[in-house]
Amino acid sequence: MRKYIAEFLGTFMLVGIGTGSIVYSAASTQSPLTVALAFGLALAIAIYTFGPISGGHFNPAVSLSMAIQKRLSWVDFGGYIVAQFLGAIVASAAVYGGVAAYLKSSTVSTALSGQTMTVSQFVSYVGLGQANYATGERLNAFAFEFVLTFLFVLVISIVTKLTNVPAPLVIGLFLAVLIIVALPITGGSFNPARSLSPAIFVGGKALKHLLVYIPAQLIAGALAAFAANYFNKTSDEKAVKA
Amino acid sequence: MRKYIAEFLGTFMLVGIGTGSIVYSAASTQSPLTVALAFGLALAIAIYTFGPISGGHFNPAVSLSMAIQKRLSWVDFGGYIVAQFLGAIVASAAVYGGVAAYLKSSTVSTALSGQTMTVSQFVSYVGLGQANYATGERLNAFAFEFVLTFLFVLVISIVTKLTNVPAPLVIGLFLAVLIIVALPITGGSFNPARSLSPAIFVGGKALKHLLVYIPAQLIAGALAAFAANYFNKTSDEKAVKA
Amino acid sequence: MRKYIAEFLGTFMLVGIGTGSIVYSAASTQSPLTVALAFGLALAIAIYTFGPISGGHFNPAVSLSMAIQKRLSWVDFGGYIVAQFLGAIVASAAVYGGVAAYLKSSTVSTALSGQTMTVSQFVSYVGLGQANYATGERLNAFAFEFVLTFLFVLVISIVTKLTNVPAPLVIGLFLAVLIIVALPITGGSFNPARSLSPAIFVGGKALKHLLVYIPAQLIAGALAAFAANYFNKTSDEKAVKA
Amino acid sequence: MRKYIAEFLGTFMLVGIGTGSIVYSAASTQSPLTVALAFGLALAIAIYTFGPISGGHFNPAVSLSMAIQKRLSWVDFGGYIVAQFLGAIVASAAVYGGVAAYLKSSTVSTALSGQTMTVSQFVSYVGLGQANYATGERLNAFAFEFVLTFLFVLVISIVTKLTNVPAPLVIGLFLAVLIIVALPITGGSFNPARSLSPAIFVGGKALKHLLVYIPAQLIAGALAAFAANYFNKTSDEKAVKA
Repeated sequence: MRKYIAEFLGTFMLVGIGTGSIVYSAASTQSPLTVALAFGLALAIAIYTFGPISGGHFNPAVSLSMAIQKRLSWVDFGGYIVAQFLGAIVASAAVYGGVAAYLKSSTVSTALSGQTMTVSQFVSYVGLGQANYATGERLNAFAFEFVLTFLFVLVISIVTKLTNVPAPLVIGLFLAVLIIVALPITGGSFNPARSLSPAIFVGGKALKHLLVYIPAQLIAGALAAFAANYFNKTSDEKAVKA
Repeated sequence: MRKYIAEFLGTFMLVGIGTGSIVYSAASTQSPLTVALAFGLALAIAIYTFGPISGGHFNPAVSLSMAIQKRLSWVDFGGYIVAQFLGAIVASAAVYGGVAAYLKSSTVSTALSGQTMTVSQFVSYVGLGQANYATGERLNAFAFEFVLTFLFVLVISIVTKLTNVPAPLVIGLFLAVLIIVALPITGGSFNPARSLSPAIFVGGKALKHLLVYIPAQLIAGALAAFAANYFNKTSDEKAVKA
Repeated sequence: MRKYIAEFLGTFMLVGIGTGSIVYSAASTQSPLTVALAFGLALAIAIYTFGPISGGHFNPAVSLSMAIQKRLSWVDFGGYIVAQFLGAIVASAAVYGGVAAYLKSSTVSTALSGQTMTVSQFVSYVGLGQANYATGERLNAFAFEFVLTFLFVLVISIVTKLTNVPAPLVIGLFLAVLIIVALPITGGSFNPARSLSPAIFVGGKALKHLLVYIPAQLIAGALAAFAANYFNKTSDEKAVKA
Repeated sequence: MRKYIAEFLGTFMLVGIGTGSIVYSAASTQSPLTVALAFGLALAIAIYTFGPISGGHFNPAVSLSMAIQKRLSWVDFGGYIVAQFLGAIVASAAVYGGVAAYLKSSTVSTALSGQTMTVSQFVSYVGLGQANYATGERLNAFAFEFVLTFLFVLVISIVTKLTNVPAPLVIGLFLAVLIIVALPITGGSFNPARSLSPAIFVGGKALKHLLVYIPAQLIAGALAAFAANYFNKTSDEKAVKA
C-alpha cells in the first residue's frame, strides 16, 4: 500500500508544481525555463524522496515500460497507474482551487485590468496547464510526443540500471530540457497522467487531444522497453568508465 | 553553543540572500526563478556548510517536526528557534541597511525617476521581501502555506534519513520550486522565521498576516512528523534501488 | 556497433535539443540562459546515459583529442565521427520537420502577424540554430571558437581522469557557460558536428562559415590533447584534496 | 610550477566567462541570474578541474585565508596571487579583444542603432564587467563586500574540510547567489583579482573604487580564517549526519 501512496504523492507533486507554475504565472513573466525547471526539479525531488519506496515512476508510460522490462509486476502496474491518475487529478483540482486566490492578487488584477474574471472564465481562458497542439497539427504532435517520450523513457530505463549516476537528477533535468524544446509545439507532456488531469477540468479541445497524446506516450514507453534491453545488456557486459 | 551559532548563521544566510534578492531587484528584471533559486540555493549551501554541526534546520517548523520525531531534544528545540528568529531578524535589518545604498544606484534612480524616495518610503512601498496574500484570501493563504509546508517538511524528514541522496541539494531545490508556484499566492514562505523578520520592519498588513502564516506552518510541520514516521519505517524495512 | 549507436543517439540528443530550443523560441522570450542550459544539460544527460557504452564524446573535436591521447583507437575514431555527423544531421532534419507544426501555433502566428511564412521562408529567416559570426569578423570568430574549444576539450580530458568528480555534469555545465559568453559572437558551437548539421539545411553563409569553425575546433581539440597530458601527469602524481 | 599554471587558468576561466557574460550581453536581455550562474558555474568547473592540482582558489582573499589557516605555505601564497592577478588580467584583455567582433554583430548594431561606437567608446560606456558602487556609497559598498566576502570565504573554508560534500558545486552556487544579491549594490566581486583586472582597462572611477573593494575583501578573508578555525574544530569533534 505504501508504494501506491508514494506514487500518488509523487505524481501530485509533479503535476501540482509543474502545472501550478504555468497557471499562476499567467499575468507575470514566467519564462519557459522556469516552467521546465518546475516540472523537472519536482520530478527529481519526488524520485529522490519516494524512489526507495516505489521506484519513483509517477508516469503510466514509465510504469508500462518497466512492466514490459519485467522490472514491475503487472499487479503493481495496475495499482501504480490508478495511484498516478488519482495523484494527478487531485493536483489539478488543487491548482483549480487556488485560482480564486490568484485572481484577487494585485498583480493579476492589474494585468487583467478591465477584465473582471470569474474562476471558470479564467480556466477556460488561461487553462490549468493542459498540453495542447495547434489546430490541424495532429500528426506532428503525435510525432513529437512519441519521439521525445521514447527518448525520455529510454534514458530513464538506462540510467536507473547504472551505478555512480545521480539518476533522479538526470531524469528530472532531462524532463526539463525536453519541455524547453516541446513547449511551443505540444506543451511537452510525455506522461498520460499529466496529460489527462488538467484536461478533465478544462474540457473541450484539451479532452479531444488526449486521443493523440496518450497513445503516442504509451506506444513510446512500450517500444523504449525493447531499446533499453539492447543498451542495458551492453552496459552489463562492458561498463567502461566515461 | 556552536550549533546555535550555526542555526543563527544559516538562517541569516537564507533570509538575507532570499529577501535581499527580492528587495534589490525592485527596479530591474529579477524573475521569479531568480528569487526562487536565491532562497533555494542559499538553503542548500547553508545545510551543506552547517548541517554537520546543527542538522541544518534554519526553520522553526522543521525544528518542531524534528523534535516530535525525537530527532531533536526539546531543550535544543528552544535554543534553535531563538537562534533562527535572531538570525532572520539580523538578516532583515541588514537588508534594510542596504536599501540606502541601493536607492543611490543609477539603475534604481532611472527606474523610479520622478520619485525621489527616502528609505522608509521605499520600505513601505517595495517592502523587505515580506510574504503577503491578497485581501480577503486568508483561508486560501492558510491552505497554500499549510499544504506546501507539509510537503516541504515531509520531504526533508524523509531524504535526511536516506543514504546516497544529496539531501541538502534536494531540500534547497524543493524550496525553489515551491516558491515558483506559491510566489503569486502567498509569497512562498513555509518558514515562521522568514515570515516574521521582514514583517517586523515593515509592519501593518505584513504583521497581521503572521497570524495566518505562522500557525499554518507550525501545524503543517507537526503533522509532517507523523507522515514522515509512516514513510521512514517503510524505507528502513525495504530500501529498493530506484 | 552499440557504441556507435550510442554516439549517434547522444549527438542526436545534443543537437536536437540544443538547436530545437533556439528554433522553436523564435517568437517567444527564450533567454540565452535557456538555450545554454538546453545544450549543456542535454550533453550532461547524454554522457550519463551513453558514457558507459561509448565514453560519451558526441563531438569530433573531443574524439580527435581522445585519439591523440591514445584513449580511443583510430578505428573507433572513424566510426565515432561518422556516427556523430549522422546523429547531428538527423537531429537537424527532425528540427526542420517540426517547423511546420511550430508555424501553426497561435503564439507564433501572433508574433509573426502579417507575415504568413512557409517553412522554407522560416528556415532562411530564423534558421535552424546554425552558428554564425558577423560579416568581416572571420579572424575574431576563429579565435573565439579556438580558445573556447581548447578550454572545453582540456577540461573534458582532465575531469574524466579524476575520481570523485561528477564529470558529465561538469562538462555539460561548462558547455552552458561557454555558450552564454560566445552566443553573441559565434553562436558558441565548439563541435564540428553541431556546426555542420544545421548549415547543410540552411546553406549560404552558414555553409561558408564552416571553413572557419571546423578547422578552429579540430586544431583546438588536437592541441588540448597535449595540454591535457601535462595536467593529467600532475594529477596522477599528486592528487591533493581541494 | 603546475599549480601556478592551474591557478592562472582557473582565474582566467572565472574572470573571462563571468565578465564576458556581462560585456557581450550589453545589447540583449541577459538576466542577473545568467550573469550570476556564469561566474558561479565557471568557478565550480575550475575547482573541479584544477582543484586536485592547486586547491582551486582563483581568488587572493581565499589564498590569504588559507595561508592564515596554515593550509597554504606563504611561499605558495606569493606564487598563487601572482598567477591569479595575471590570469584575471589576461582574461580582461581577451574580453577587451572580443569587443570588436561584438560591435559588428547585427543584434548589437540594432540595439545601438544611430550610435556607431568604437571599441574604446564601448569600453568607457558599457565597460568590461568591472564592479562599481553608486557615488557617495563608499561605506555601504565596503560593508557589502566585507560581509559577503567573509561569508563566502567562511563557507569555502568549512566545506573543503568536510567529506561527502560536493564542495566545488557548493562554492560555485554560493558565489552565484551572493552575486544575485549584491549585483545592484557593488556588482558582487568578493575577489581582488576579479576587481582589479577590468578596472585596469577601464580606468577612472573603477580604478579608484579598488581602494574600497580590495581592502574589504582581504580583511574579510583574513577574519574568515579565524571563524573557520572555530567551526572546523567543531566539525572534527562531532560530525553529526544532517
